[in-house]
Amino acid sequence: MVYITRKERFNAAHRLFLPEYTDEENFRVFGKCSNPKWHGHNYTLFVTVKGEVDEKTGFVIDLKILSGIIHEKIIDILDHKNINLEVPFMEGKLASTENLAVGIWNELFEEIRKEGALLHCIKLEETENNCAEYFGE
Amino acid sequence: MVYITRKERFNAAHRLFLPEYTDEENFRVFGKCSNPKWHGHNYTLFVTVKGEVDEKTGFVIDLKILSGIIHEKIIDILDHKNINLEVPFMEGKLASTENLAVGIWNELFEEIRKEGALLHCIKLEETENNCAEYFGE
Amino acid sequence: MVYITRKERFNAAHRLFLPEYTDEENFRVFGKCSNPKWHGHNYTLFVTVKGEVDEKTGFVIDLKILSGIIHEKIIDILDHKNINLEVPFMEGKLASTENLAVGIWNELFEEIRKEGALLHCIKLEETENNCAEYFGE
Amino acid sequence: MVYITRKERFNAAHRLFLPEYTDEENFRVFGKCSNPKWHGHNYTLFVTVKGEVDEKTGFVIDLKILSGIIHEKIIDILDHKNINLEVPFMEGKLASTENLAVGIWNELFEEIRKEGALLHCIKLEETENNCAEYFGE
Amino acid sequence: MVYITRKERFNAAHRLFLPEYTDEENFRVFGKCSNPKWHGHNYTLFVTVKGEVDEKTGFVIDLKILSGIIHEKIIDILDHKNINLEVPFMEGKLASTENLAVGIWNELFEEIRKEGALLHCIKLEETENNCAEYFGE
Amino acid sequence: MVYITRKERFNAAHRLFLPEYTDEENFRVFGKCSNPKWHGHNYTLFVTVKGEVDEKTGFVIDLKILSGIIHEKIIDILDHKNINLEVPFMEGKLASTENLAVGIWNELFEEIRKEGALLHCIKLEETENNCAEYFGE
Repeated sequence: MVYITRKERFNAAHRLFLPEYTDEENFRVFGKCSNPKWHGHNYTLFVTVKGEVDEKTGFVIDLKILSGIIHEKIIDILDHKNINLEVPFMEGKLASTENLAVGIWNELFEEIRKEGALLHCIKLEETENNCAEYFGE
Repeated sequence: MVYITRKERFNAAHRLFLPEYTDEENFRVFGKCSNPKWHGHNYTLFVTVKGEVDEKTGFVIDLKILSGIIHEKIIDILDHKNINLEVPFMEGKLASTENLAVGIWNELFEEIRKEGALLHCIKLEETENNCAEYFGE
Repeated sequence: MVYITRKERFNAAHRLFLPEYTDEENFRVFGKCSNPKWHGHNYTLFVTVKGEVDEKTGFVIDLKILSGIIHEKIIDILDHKNINLEVPFMEGKLASTENLAVGIWNELFEEIRKEGALLHCIKLEETENNCAEYFGE
Repeated sequence: MVYITRKERFNAAHRLFLPEYTDEENFRVFGKCSNPKWHGHNYTLFVTVKGEVDEKTGFVIDLKILSGIIHEKIIDILDHKNINLEVPFMEGKLASTENLAVGIWNELFEEIRKEGALLHCIKLEETENNCAEYFGE
Repeated sequence: MVYITRKERFNAAHRLFLPEYTDEENFRVFGKCSNPKWHGHNYTLFVTVKGEVDEKTGFVIDLKILSGIIHEKIIDILDHKNINLEVPFMEGKLASTENLAVGIWNELFEEIRKEGALLHCIKLEETENNCAEYFGE
Repeated sequence: MVYITRKERFNAAHRLFLPEYTDEENFRVFGKCSNPKWHGHNYTLFVTVKGEVDEKTGFVIDLKILSGIIHEKIIDILDHKNINLEVPFMEGKLASTENLAVGIWNELFEEIRKEGALLHCIKLEETENNCAEYFGE
């Protein structure tokens, strides 16, 4: 069993807020992250999959295929987008790093299983100081 | 003459577009950076000042003072903000890395001169792959 | 269950030595790290907590609160200090990265539990080449 | 139980290919990584060991000893070498990151056990975007 | 005048040697870098151009165009290649970082001038510890 | 003319203070950096030299020789040392990054000239946020 991690990046705008709160209430809970005019980040995404090493190719998974899945399902959907307004799998959810990591897991799990590997971890860095990890449970 | 560089960070939303263009025209010129619903970045700012080393303190400039100026004039104005809509010194300007670097220079130059040092360079990284530098000329 | 990691930094002096040894004996065991006149490091600390994502806020833990705890209990105590002489929770212990990681865990565990999350890992980098991790067991 | 990680580096040439395939077939499976004239990487290796902290020294393992083992068994064998042609423990194996990580584990496990610690993980970065991890099972 | 830097990467094999020397003589001059069976690196390339900021677009140069030039002229030629055997602009030259930086400058200068900007600096990192810079004079 | 940069590291303790000041006065001027019990840093040193590329070797300077000079004159003197108490070339000087950069320049300039290259810049990073550069004038 070997674990393979692919690093990808996307840049997006977002806002942390509850629609039922006033701007003042949102500021009390979410601070400057609740700015109604948005802010944004360079997100760094680490997708870790696990599996047996194929005896012929020496691969757990072909990284071109893994990267292709991540681009189709995640990067093309999130890059240069507004996470609150334009990302179907985040609709109705708070755009926190935690929820985003879980959302990305759900988008990728089946696609990666079809290729014979198992998604092990989604790690998402929002800034150099903060990151979330989700292992599917 | 010694050069001192202070690194600071801010996260902001922006959009590259010309108001006289349609969304389609903006997309042709600026690509996905013209998304009308915004995107954003973790910006990294390097402020380089130069000056003689003070014989008593061993400093070109007290870094607490330099960092204080950068926070008051730049970070507090830009962090978790929308560069197009909320930053006075960028009003009416395209929110490119180039223009932002020049704008930051103009905000800092006099403030740093009052402290006895000379602003030498503003370096602004928008992503790990792209940065702009301005030397005031 | 999502894992959240906060990265913080502190700069400190230390020395590896046993008080019952002579300088020569300490040098044989600890090498240049035993220099009686001290040396120091830029330490990088990664605090990982785990918990359920709060449905309302989208958070495992409010990062401002987590960062506040780390600053009060760890950074304010260690930053710009001598680990051997000035840090109460390291008294009588060898100032190794291992012991420091365990000491930081003990300082943080209860404080983080009060906020409804569970401390999962303390990772402490002493240099870019060396780090220690402690999971509480 | 504390985990200690040591980071080391080596630069090497390699090629991904199956000897029973033609160059065209290898290109279809391995892409540009199958270039018959070789290409190469700056590999970054993270060796994580675990163990009890020695009460006297404060160490899980003396990092000079750990680094010495890694240099003797791995860096001296791989650095500035051709992985396909010059590395005994990779003979007959595809020079993938996965196989290399497993090969390094096998070279190090017993040597580290002799020093009273347990090898926990081999993490090998081939580029900033790709890495493999092996935990021995 | 603003300076814009674009970072790109390529992985390649090379060898430092003089064809008129024996392997032993090459080893005396170039050390392990002269390994006749090759070694390789992850090269990081920083291309800095300078120019006036276009009042309309806010750009010194469109980064998509700059990146396109670098890919066509440099990355496609060098990535996953053997620098000594497969790179036309390095034929007959020692594959040192210095010569490679100068060679890359010569490939890019005119192409960038056609886009209305001036190539200012080629910075090429061979490892995290070594880099060469060339300013065209 | 090509510029070559070599990166090296050292870890050291220091204190910013004036001996004629009381601890309180030093604290007012230098803040926590004046802690009488010391603190320390992982310093990163970038030594940039310039020169013509040797037609035979392809080198401005043999990096093994450059690294050897830096180790003999700087790293062996500063690594795991107390900059205020144990470094001859810093005697009687405030242990600021600025003074340290100038001191390192003075130690290296002649040694590098003997090898046929010209020292161009000493860049010294004290933390990831602060650095000093000295160009000899």
